[in-house]
Amino acid sequence: MKRMIPIVLVLLALLLVLSACGRRGTPTPEAALEVDGALPKRALTVAQERGLSPDDIYAAMKTYTPSGMHDDYYIFASGGHSGSLIVIGIPSMRILKNIAVFTPEAWQGYGFGELGIEEMLDAGNVDDTEIRMGDTHHPALSETNGDYDGQYVFINDKANARVAVIDLRDFDTKQIVKDPNIISNHGSTFVTPNTEYIIQGTQYSTPLGWEYAPIEEYEEKYRGVITLWAFDREAGRIDLDKSFSIEVPPYWQDLCDSGKLASDGWAFCNSFNAEMATGGIEKGNPPFEAGVSQRDMDYMHIFNWKKAAEVYEAGKTEEINGMPVIRIPTSIEEGILYLAPEPKSPHGNDVTPDGQYIVVSGKLDPHITVYDIDKIKQAIADENWTHDPFGIPVLDFDAVKHTQIEVGLGPLHSIFDNQGFGYTSLFIDSAVAKWTVGGEKPEDWQLVDTLKVQYNIGHLTAAEGDTVSPDGNYVLVLNKWSVERFLPVGPLLPQNLQLVDISDGNFQVIYDMPMGIGEPHNAQIIKADKINAWTAYPEVGWDPIAQAPSPYGTQIGEERIERNGNEVEIFMTSVRSHLNPEHVEIKAGDHVTWHITNVETSIDSTHGFNLGGQSISLSLEPGETGSFEFTADNSGTYAFYCTEFCSALHLEMMGYMMVEP
Amino acid sequence: MKRMIPIVLVLLALLLVLSACGRRGTPTPEAALEVDGALPKRALTVAQERGLSPDDIYAAMKTYTPSGMHDDYYIFASGGHSGSLIVIGIPSMRILKNIAVFTPEAWQGYGFGELGIEEMLDAGNVDDTEIRMGDTHHPALSETNGDYDGQYVFINDKANARVAVIDLRDFDTKQIVKDPNIISNHGSTFVTPNTEYIIQGTQYSTPLGWEYAPIEEYEEKYRGVITLWAFDREAGRIDLDKSFSIEVPPYWQDLCDSGKLASDGWAFCNSFNAEMATGGIEKGNPPFEAGVSQRDMDYMHIFNWKKAAEVYEAGKTEEINGMPVIRIPTSIEEGILYLAPEPKSPHGNDVTPDGQYIVVSGKLDPHITVYDIDKIKQAIADENWTHDPFGIPVLDFDAVKHTQIEVGLGPLHSIFDNQGFGYTSLFIDSAVAKWTVGGEKPEDWQLVDTLKVQYNIGHLTAAEGDTVSPDGNYVLVLNKWSVERFLPVGPLLPQNLQLVDISDGNFQVIYDMPMGIGEPHNAQIIKADKINAWTAYPEVGWDPIAQAPSPYGTQIGEERIERNGNEVEIFMTSVRSHLNPEHVEIKAGDHVTWHITNVETSIDSTHGFNLGGQSISLSLEPGETGSFEFTADNSGTYAFYCTEFCSALHLEMMGYMMVEP
Repeated sequence: MKRMIPIVLVLLALLLVLSACGRRGTPTPEAALEVDGALPKRALTVAQERGLSPDDIYAAMKTYTPSGMHDDYYIFASGGHSGSLIVIGIPSMRILKNIAVFTPEAWQGYGFGELGIEEMLDAGNVDDTEIRMGDTHHPALSETNGDYDGQYVFINDKANARVAVIDLRDFDTKQIVKDPNIISNHGSTFVTPNTEYIIQGTQYSTPLGWEYAPIEEYEEKYRGVITLWAFDREAGRIDLDKSFSIEVPPYWQDLCDSGKLASDGWAFCNSFNAEMATGGIEKGNPPFEAGVSQRDMDYMHIFNWKKAAEVYEAGKTEEINGMPVIRIPTSIEEGILYLAPEPKSPHGNDVTPDGQYIVVSGKLDPHITVYDIDKIKQAIADENWTHDPFGIPVLDFDAVKHTQIEVGLGPLHSIFDNQGFGYTSLFIDSAVAKWTVGGEKPEDWQLVDTLKVQYNIGHLTAAEGDTVSPDGNYVLVLNKWSVERFLPVGPLLPQNLQLVDISDGNFQVIYDMPMGIGEPHNAQIIKADKINAWTAYPEVGWDPIAQAPSPYGTQIGEERIERNGNEVEIFMTSVRSHLNPEHVEIKAGDHVTWHITNVETSIDSTHGFNLGGQSISLSLEPGETGSFEFTADNSGTYAFYCTEFCSALHLEMMGYMMVEP
Repeated sequence: MKRMIPIVLVLLALLLVLSACGRRGTPTPEAALEVDGALPKRALTVAQERGLSPDDIYAAMKTYTPSGMHDDYYIFASGGHSGSLIVIGIPSMRILKNIAVFTPEAWQGYGFGELGIEEMLDAGNVDDTEIRMGDTHHPALSETNGDYDGQYVFINDKANARVAVIDLRDFDTKQIVKDPNIISNHGSTFVTPNTEYIIQGTQYSTPLGWEYAPIEEYEEKYRGVITLWAFDREAGRIDLDKSFSIEVPPYWQDLCDSGKLASDGWAFCNSFNAEMATGGIEKGNPPFEAGVSQRDMDYMHIFNWKKAAEVYEAGKTEEINGMPVIRIPTSIEEGILYLAPEPKSPHGNDVTPDGQYIVVSGKLDPHITVYDIDKIKQAIADENWTHDPFGIPVLDFDAVKHTQIEVGLGPLHSIFDNQGFGYTSLFIDSAVAKWTVGGEKPEDWQLVDTLKVQYNIGHLTAAEGDTVSPDGNYVLVLNKWSVERFLPVGPLLPQNLQLVDISDGNFQVIYDMPMGIGEPHNAQIIKADKINAWTAYPEVGWDPIAQAPSPYGTQIGEERIERNGNEVEIFMTSVRSHLNPEHVEIKAGDHVTWHITNVETSIDSTHGFNLGGQSISLSLEPGETGSFEFTADNSGTYAFYCTEFCSALHLEMMGYMMVEP
């Protein structure tokens, strides 16, 4: 047998080289075109040269990204109650990565035993209950001077009032924070123009800290907060020691937007239960859907967040469950919080690129309502207000309203392009309204077109459409119903994301994308060249959660198994195509801590790891060190292996754990 | 307030009607073309009429499925260590649904507290350890007379030797079974021609029942099994009482295929560790990758499964850990099991559509080797064999080998079209070899073409390509490395599934699909018209796991909360846009069982459900009743709500749970 080994090893070395050759052919666009023989972009040129004009050819070409070509934009779309964040390319509408955030995902080795990740997820537990699902809604890319900078993306969990930080160097979740005072935070995340803060609003009010109080004490005891999570860009983490909340009435705050340029320093959040309805259909009361829809007006909350930060710095807060809270009387006294009436059951709240106007969509009103920040400031200066039951100034509607546009039924959200147009989603009409972003003259704000979509659109977004400099070209519409739009897949249907071409005066659906992995609520679109992702970790032996070298990093030659009593610690390496050690011999009752370092450095040389009989899944990207632990309760013989098809001898990349009784 | 309710309710009714109108416009293909203005198929006609001939236009058009048009085929692709099964359309390559199988998924409400699902997942636990990940590899659609019938799909979990059943009426997982004797089952699932059995092979041998035995006792004590899981088509379940295993040597059995037509009644499984190597790189032994690659030949296992079934029925089995096992001596005596040499580290094992030939790919041999079932039968009749160390007949290689074709480096798997061609994936070459499926004359088996793919292809599949009547048109290649093929998403890259046009003599990559949600290993492709999925459950109050009416189904008007001591049982309904009851008032320490029935019946009217502070996620499709339970450990006020954006007043579809101290 010994005689054969050298031959085998030579063969293996050859294989490795050959495998590598197959992968080294990094495609340039030109090479890709030649290699693949599928030449849509060139075909488009050919088509144009030959006078083939119809839009349909153009649309077909445009939505097709050929083999080997890169997309122009990234979409970051929430995954809804999948708890994830979905990365999609434009124009191809292909899913590039489904980033696990609040919910475990085994392919990425997220939440299946890897130490560091488990602790991060545990930071989001509620009342000592382990929470492993989330309901993501509104992703927010980090901004510098009101423009996306491609460094981080934030997202909320409505189900438990949490916020997560994702690092765009490795597209991995790094932090989860739980608001200690609220249990529901639909209206988040939104960043201030330099990502000083991540804004988060309560949705369903409860007593602060979700303490018990009977529903009859709703007005007295139930409250919301707007939390300003301070972001430390250098650390890449929310700084809990610099974050604070602003108490608000139990009006069910909803979507927010941060001011910018003309409205810099301010933030705006809708609410839709100014009625303070408390439901109880089973008791003969009007159900919530009716109770909260009774009044013609709800309240937009207008915050001076810069002033709030000063007030917080000055210590004018009350600590509630460990979080400094600016109470309502302080906000009134300090001029932090104002209300403005808004029709009717408002949902979207979107600031124009110049920061001058705030556009509100009342879902039970066929108009969008436009507010002017100058008029808001003037009304505040003039004290042109009444008061709500909590003593908060309610600005005069006619004084702050700039104009209204009748757009259609069920307006929800608005977004902007680079040609001076706004686009509003119409849920009930299943359509998108296109209108002119006018200026000082109200008559310049006009509906110009409407586009049917399929069906029941919720959010919509545009390429960099909520920054100070929208990009135009594309609008993405996130439809909630797809009905018979796609092949049947049983009673649970995919959502339908549609790509709309808005370039060169176009206004046309050019692609239907079934979303069969979650229910995206909102998305942001960033130019591809703004992202500078790593292809491998900076050095071998890297801890991706700490974004720093791991103390357990193991180099080739350092592999070992250490025993101290019944504590066993394994330092393992992985490389094409073996794990080292291959035999792990322990005893029943041993507590095992197992570190694995992927010592490879080339792009795409990921190894996965699974151990039979344990619910373990690691994904070890090039350079990564991952660890897990368990107690070997049962004796037996178990296989472990690489779960990522890495090489021709991938199936041979395994070992045995033998647990002696 | 009372005065306003009727107005509100009228408004709500109107909204519901309007919402419904928006969805009623079920698109016919023609209507879709008119509505959307994106007309690629017509555009193709136009292009052809104008003499625009290049393949690139054709390729671009072909890969684009316009808004509102349905795909022609479904792909069912394993999700690898995501533990799921991914449903994709051809030619659009859009993901229609990622079916959760072994790993929880919150959007589908799978494994986040729903009773029935939890018990099903628990049936797959190992040694009392809760297993909630899986490593899916080889999906198998149910067959009738060797052709896909569109009723069920099966898939394995390599990580823990389990098999799952998915019902294609609702595309949901219905059953998970755990093999009690093995811990690793890469080579599964494969069905017999009428789905009598689902074939599952061991990969990494251990003592049966994964009992402890030191690695030095490998040859003596380590074993594999081939398990024949009996499928009860009426019940839609694997029948554990009619399933059995066949003991095999510790050769690391790999992929199998079932015989059909000429080879009906037989099954074939590769193995790649005839060396019985035991690794131990850390001890100075050759690593597994070298040890198992030493010999020039491994063994194909040739089973007479019909005879095995008779032997099982006759009781000639030994019960091991509750599973009847045909031991090796019995298999030899009864003529159930034979071996045939196969070069070198074989991987794919694929039977031609007529059942006459078995094509084996040895990943360290540049040839594919073709065996003839008649020659195998003749060699058996002639007793033209030697014996392996376990006494199993090893048929003479030259007697059973029909021919070999030199195809390239790293051949893995083969698949077939309807024009008499076979296609073999070449991992090291990153290419697909196309060859003629000859007949009796060995010289008619010839390599005809090779296509580069990007990069390092594992499995490949073709439209109904492993049935008795392949469909042609498309080959899908599942590449393991994508390198710089797509926009960067950090160190963990997507795989690259490529669609190859094989119609009308074409042999061209026409689409790159990044797979950023898992690592598919194999796939099957079925004609779309063979699937008859439900759009809603058959009646309101349906238990999808039992596929029967639920005893907890609740109709409108039957909603209630029942208390018996500290046992609380809630019978809730969900309908656009409220839950009933809206107030759940309980006491700390209560044990709560909570049933929710979605009383809607129209397509796509799904409601989700989440309860803050609990890791609960339900997806209640039209008609479904779902239940969960928990003990209210903490007092407090919690919100629950519908997680699926169902209507204009979706955000209002909520309630409060108040837990009194």
